[in-house]
Amino acid sequence: MSDAPKKVVLAYSGGLDTSIILKWLQTEYGCEVITFTADLGQGEELEPARAKAELLGIKPENIHIEDVREEFVRDYVFPMFRANAVYEGQYLLGTSIARPLIAKRLVEIAQAHGADAVAHGATGKGNDQVRFELSAYALDPSIKVIAPWRIWDLTSRTKLIEFAEKNQIPIAKDKRGEAPFSVDANLLHTSSEGKALENPAEQAPDYVYQRTVNPEDAPDQPEYIEVTFEKGDAVAINGQAMSPATLLAALNDHGGRHGIGRLDFVENRFVGMKSRGIYETPGGTILLEAHRGIEQITLDSGSGHLKDSLMPRYAELIYNGFWFSPEREMLQALIDKSQEYVSGTVRLKLYKGSVSCVGRWSDMSLYSEAHVTFEEDAGAYDQKDAAGFIKLNALRLKLIGNRNARVK
Amino acid sequence: MSDAPKKVVLAYSGGLDTSIILKWLQTEYGCEVITFTADLGQGEELEPARAKAELLGIKPENIHIEDVREEFVRDYVFPMFRANAVYEGQYLLGTSIARPLIAKRLVEIAQAHGADAVAHGATGKGNDQVRFELSAYALDPSIKVIAPWRIWDLTSRTKLIEFAEKNQIPIAKDKRGEAPFSVDANLLHTSSEGKALENPAEQAPDYVYQRTVNPEDAPDQPEYIEVTFEKGDAVAINGQAMSPATLLAALNDHGGRHGIGRLDFVENRFVGMKSRGIYETPGGTILLEAHRGIEQITLDSGSGHLKDSLMPRYAELIYNGFWFSPEREMLQALIDKSQEYVSGTVRLKLYKGSVSCVGRWSDMSLYSEAHVTFEEDAGAYDQKDAAGFIKLNALRLKLIGNRNARVK
Amino acid sequence: MSDAPKKVVLAYSGGLDTSIILKWLQTEYGCEVITFTADLGQGEELEPARAKAELLGIKPENIHIEDVREEFVRDYVFPMFRANAVYEGQYLLGTSIARPLIAKRLVEIAQAHGADAVAHGATGKGNDQVRFELSAYALDPSIKVIAPWRIWDLTSRTKLIEFAEKNQIPIAKDKRGEAPFSVDANLLHTSSEGKALENPAEQAPDYVYQRTVNPEDAPDQPEYIEVTFEKGDAVAINGQAMSPATLLAALNDHGGRHGIGRLDFVENRFVGMKSRGIYETPGGTILLEAHRGIEQITLDSGSGHLKDSLMPRYAELIYNGFWFSPEREMLQALIDKSQEYVSGTVRLKLYKGSVSCVGRWSDMSLYSEAHVTFEEDAGAYDQKDAAGFIKLNALRLKLIGNRNARVK
Amino acid sequence: MSDAPKKVVLAYSGGLDTSIILKWLQTEYGCEVITFTADLGQGEELEPARAKAELLGIKPENIHIEDVREEFVRDYVFPMFRANAVYEGQYLLGTSIARPLIAKRLVEIAQAHGADAVAHGATGKGNDQVRFELSAYALDPSIKVIAPWRIWDLTSRTKLIEFAEKNQIPIAKDKRGEAPFSVDANLLHTSSEGKALENPAEQAPDYVYQRTVNPEDAPDQPEYIEVTFEKGDAVAINGQAMSPATLLAALNDHGGRHGIGRLDFVENRFVGMKSRGIYETPGGTILLEAHRGIEQITLDSGSGHLKDSLMPRYAELIYNGFWFSPEREMLQALIDKSQEYVSGTVRLKLYKGSVSCVGRWSDMSLYSEAHVTFEEDAGAYDQKDAAGFIKLNALRLKLIGNRNARVK
Repeated sequence: MSDAPKKVVLAYSGGLDTSIILKWLQTEYGCEVITFTADLGQGEELEPARAKAELLGIKPENIHIEDVREEFVRDYVFPMFRANAVYEGQYLLGTSIARPLIAKRLVEIAQAHGADAVAHGATGKGNDQVRFELSAYALDPSIKVIAPWRIWDLTSRTKLIEFAEKNQIPIAKDKRGEAPFSVDANLLHTSSEGKALENPAEQAPDYVYQRTVNPEDAPDQPEYIEVTFEKGDAVAINGQAMSPATLLAALNDHGGRHGIGRLDFVENRFVGMKSRGIYETPGGTILLEAHRGIEQITLDSGSGHLKDSLMPRYAELIYNGFWFSPEREMLQALIDKSQEYVSGTVRLKLYKGSVSCVGRWSDMSLYSEAHVTFEEDAGAYDQKDAAGFIKLNALRLKLIGNRNARVK
Repeated sequence: MSDAPKKVVLAYSGGLDTSIILKWLQTEYGCEVITFTADLGQGEELEPARAKAELLGIKPENIHIEDVREEFVRDYVFPMFRANAVYEGQYLLGTSIARPLIAKRLVEIAQAHGADAVAHGATGKGNDQVRFELSAYALDPSIKVIAPWRIWDLTSRTKLIEFAEKNQIPIAKDKRGEAPFSVDANLLHTSSEGKALENPAEQAPDYVYQRTVNPEDAPDQPEYIEVTFEKGDAVAINGQAMSPATLLAALNDHGGRHGIGRLDFVENRFVGMKSRGIYETPGGTILLEAHRGIEQITLDSGSGHLKDSLMPRYAELIYNGFWFSPEREMLQALIDKSQEYVSGTVRLKLYKGSVSCVGRWSDMSLYSEAHVTFEEDAGAYDQKDAAGFIKLNALRLKLIGNRNARVK
Repeated sequence: MSDAPKKVVLAYSGGLDTSIILKWLQTEYGCEVITFTADLGQGEELEPARAKAELLGIKPENIHIEDVREEFVRDYVFPMFRANAVYEGQYLLGTSIARPLIAKRLVEIAQAHGADAVAHGATGKGNDQVRFELSAYALDPSIKVIAPWRIWDLTSRTKLIEFAEKNQIPIAKDKRGEAPFSVDANLLHTSSEGKALENPAEQAPDYVYQRTVNPEDAPDQPEYIEVTFEKGDAVAINGQAMSPATLLAALNDHGGRHGIGRLDFVENRFVGMKSRGIYETPGGTILLEAHRGIEQITLDSGSGHLKDSLMPRYAELIYNGFWFSPEREMLQALIDKSQEYVSGTVRLKLYKGSVSCVGRWSDMSLYSEAHVTFEEDAGAYDQKDAAGFIKLNALRLKLIGNRNARVK
Repeated sequence: MSDAPKKVVLAYSGGLDTSIILKWLQTEYGCEVITFTADLGQGEELEPARAKAELLGIKPENIHIEDVREEFVRDYVFPMFRANAVYEGQYLLGTSIARPLIAKRLVEIAQAHGADAVAHGATGKGNDQVRFELSAYALDPSIKVIAPWRIWDLTSRTKLIEFAEKNQIPIAKDKRGEAPFSVDANLLHTSSEGKALENPAEQAPDYVYQRTVNPEDAPDQPEYIEVTFEKGDAVAINGQAMSPATLLAALNDHGGRHGIGRLDFVENRFVGMKSRGIYETPGGTILLEAHRGIEQITLDSGSGHLKDSLMPRYAELIYNGFWFSPEREMLQALIDKSQEYVSGTVRLKLYKGSVSCVGRWSDMSLYSEAHVTFEEDAGAYDQKDAAGFIKLNALRLKLIGNRNARVK
């Protein structure tokens, strides 16, 4: 097997599945394995992953555990929110946006170690394999990517458990059976999908939700918060400046408490099938409403409508795994250009599952009370101009009307 | 004044402002006035408008009062909702979509009466003048449009009241002073704007809302309803078939009771300024969520993403008044083509201001549990195919990566 | 090999390569082979294909030879030209547009014969495999597609010839060696690519061109022709009505004689690599200029600009093989809607490699000399309207200008 | 007339019409006039404009004559060509792109002189008034713009001549009568329109063309030239480095000699009517073909298709006068981002009215002969990958096919 990898960097969570992958890589290829475990804000302790990796024979210098939360929010989440990106009208792309960062670190670690391959634990049916691999190939065209789920014959829970037992991989008690659904989490969201959720006609059971209270259980009083933006990025809550990850975490607390950001969704995967997911994006849902609110007064129609019309394509690129593509970067350049004056503060009402912008102000505001007022406007606007405006906008329609009358 | 209109069809509400316009048309041009009063579901009695028109000297045969609610929902609201149209990310276009129908009837009545002009009561600062006039000119290029607000010198409340008094126009007591804000309503929505609402930093006072309860006052228990679609249009609620207008009215009841569909919004008017509006669209907000829900399982990604990418343009056309334009009709043809299989039922949860789709099913569903399942899929999908799929999607990115490495 | 096809419909040209495929299918799978040979206007006799198929043991009732030229032009070429479709700015999609029709007939013949598979002779590097297979799968999701070039080990000319010899497949003398380049032809175009043309820096040699004279060898006098359109489709040349295929053939004669429609092009294949092709599309190039010319006077800006903005996506869909996709059909509905009034006649100058529209007229024309004239326009247009038009278009820009001045 | 301008900067050509405007401004408003005459490469001596301005009483310090050719090409023409911008499929925007620069200089001179207004000689029917005024308002929201053609009553040639005679404005002999058509020229193009050209059915007479020979009169031998690009901009011809304006002038020489770049066109004006123009853009036509040629090998499909899909909108913005708008700048950011690697050289054939790219090469090329070759590719590409690629692209279409079969 001359094509076999010699040294592999594995995206390693410390859980059973990636531990099995770790061991499988060792046994299948006889290769050296390097682990990469990232704190993306998924809310789990990472140090156990170190111990487990060591137990599986990974050399200490081959174990990488990193807190990438600030980088994640600053360089991935925030740029995406500048675009008000939503996939298929509703999904805030919480899983999609984390994959490129993980792939980037895998490749960088591979290069630092002289590794020839990276490996991930995504299955052959999902989007994540595509996101990991397109990112990795874009950043290092010579890298190999190993996707064990597409290769091995451990195609049932039973076989996996057998493999684990045969290879002395510790198995937590609750992992022997199948999980009722599969979970992915990071600072932006928690997604749940599969098995118990596979019938899109049936309401998801309450126990699926992990990060938000049921709106019925949220406080009976609304809470008001203010979010401040600079050049399109949130920088403060209630006047208190915060780093990107700190701010998103704080919004998650607010949102989670009020049951905000739940989404029951059926989406089109890039690989061609539909899937049903339950998403919880408490902070992100607040952030989107807030960003739209500040754009309402700081973006003109030319900028806003252009952004709006390109947003679906931008979101699709992220969903499909093309973060590190020239076209995503081109769109980002366009979007970032629009955010130069998107600064100011919005006031938001949080209440039992919903968030609404109820006020917004900015030194950069384009809102002109002088123009819009129902009162005397002191000459700011000459209503007679509207007659000419309409006449010339109508001219084409009149010519069409005349033509159609003539030929019918 | 050879250019003066001889016979004018006026969009007449029966209120003070359009009564003043009626009289002004008579006195300014000495022309015959025909009134058109439409029941679009605004929730007001129309017969008083007849009495008032007669009082102002309009001949009985020149008074047109029509219930156009079914036409409004069937031919305007529903086609628009097939597109999931929202303007600037959030506004459901409730005012915009009513104007073309009114203009169409004005022109048709003008043609039936041999009138040479139509008149409306929209001001020179807003979008409605544009919507009325573009529609009128498109449908009858030879029609004159009279927009008194852009012409006369009745530029203050005081002058208007004086004119009314001088011309024996009855003035309701509460109309002597200025209204604290201006209202437009129809079966789809109520909008409020101006004066008390002109500062976008300040939360709109509670008394502005007319059609929805405050979410805090909504029932403490969620309500679940099912909406059934055929070819993109809602046809039944909880299994009960309804006509378009009946169905929308029923959704309004549901939504209003649960405080659904409030929007505090700053938007870009077509005439170039920003304005702040408070919108209540209870039934429409439910309908949008429901339609998205049924599309989730019945539209593939090719159709859905194409629609999504064109929606902003379609919404902009409606907002700007181009309903009767070839490009709106072209987009409508595209959208309608996509709806052939958008049939099925969704289950919605209504609770304290929000509506969420929690289930959806359809004979036309494209969702394939056989493909997506985490379980054995009996060969529905070969995970190895994904490897080739990713490889070829990555090829371009690899070539770029190689190039960039080479030249840097 | 339980998965082996039992009965296969092969896209059969009668040439050496598809004859080898025919035999390979028989020997590899022991399956019954049905041949389909289409006259798409490629300019070759088809009856020899019958004799050859019979020689290779195909039963007469399994040999299908069809003249599909009219269907090709009417249902594929003309709808595409309504969109002014060009791929990557220049390529007229001559190969792309023929594939769906061939795939459709393969599937229909398979269904008529109860065959379980279709086969084609496209390689694994190109776009045609994608176009054939996406079309076939869309039209019959249960069909198998056999692409021998991706499967077999006949990976060199030598091996192919050996296989042919071993299997008594007649080999024309000039087919023993490698062709200097590969050719595809139909009524719309001839494409040449590969081998001698693989260096995009080097000018293609003159002998590559098969359907057009070198412009230097074209007549020294221009020729003028008139093309008449009805609802977007060409229906007559110089006043003489013609069927679609007859008309395109006549345009090919005109264009070929004047050296029109040559294109030396490097394009992005759907499978991720770039390739260089030499295309000759004499009639199509004339048709595109003619169609643009008639649209100039019959389409308004709203229709035209919307079409223009969607054309790249439409062309990409056709190039990538998605003719039988809902999104192509949605775009077609939009485009066809625009063509209702695209009727009239254009006058074209053909001269030494170029075609230019030099006149156009139509009963459906929207061109209004009354409006545009530099002379007195008798009130058709009030120049003062332009002031208001500009003022309101500028309002937003002024508000931005003020803001930017304020905050800088 | 308190609104009357005090000091006006006039876009002054030195010709009869703008001399009349100059005098009219003085007499109508009693204001001080400052003249601005720009050398945009229109091919006329500018110093006579100085003498004429002095003769009309303009103070020497109020006369501005500037050579802006390099700025014009570098900052306006070249950025636009990075986008391959064409309006309505064919027009290279030669007039449109010059207006913003003139407006910018008018405003800057006004600010330097403390002038409160600018004036231009564009009529109320055309696009140029819009382009001048939107640019001026965007750059200085407080500036007044005077457009005499929309104001005065000099509505016939006779009245203009009378006014000139009455005011001692010298009249060249050939200017007494009406010109047979109207001309605009700059380094990018010459446009001719109006009067003799107003019937779009009739071929434009030969004497209209001023900058290109008739293709029939062009050399009988083709000429080959090489154009080199760096980051999307042309920098050398036949290996000789040139400044932007010098390079465009040289391309004009080449193109004019070979009859390249003539366009007979009917277009949609922003003000709603259609007009017919004859355009000559010899150098620009070559530049567009050259730029497309170099992009063929240096841009991947993601970048190229995104650019292509936005080009119509970008071109429309320039045509409509929105050069100085945030949305044009956003699109420019996107386009410029794409040009980072658009460097290399193309070989072009110029012959009797047409220009064709016949070769292109670049260190930045993405063309991979290793991948595309028909020969053995040494493992660069695994044809079997294509099977998976097609399968997953087809999955959605198969699910649709199954659904449609099921429900029909």
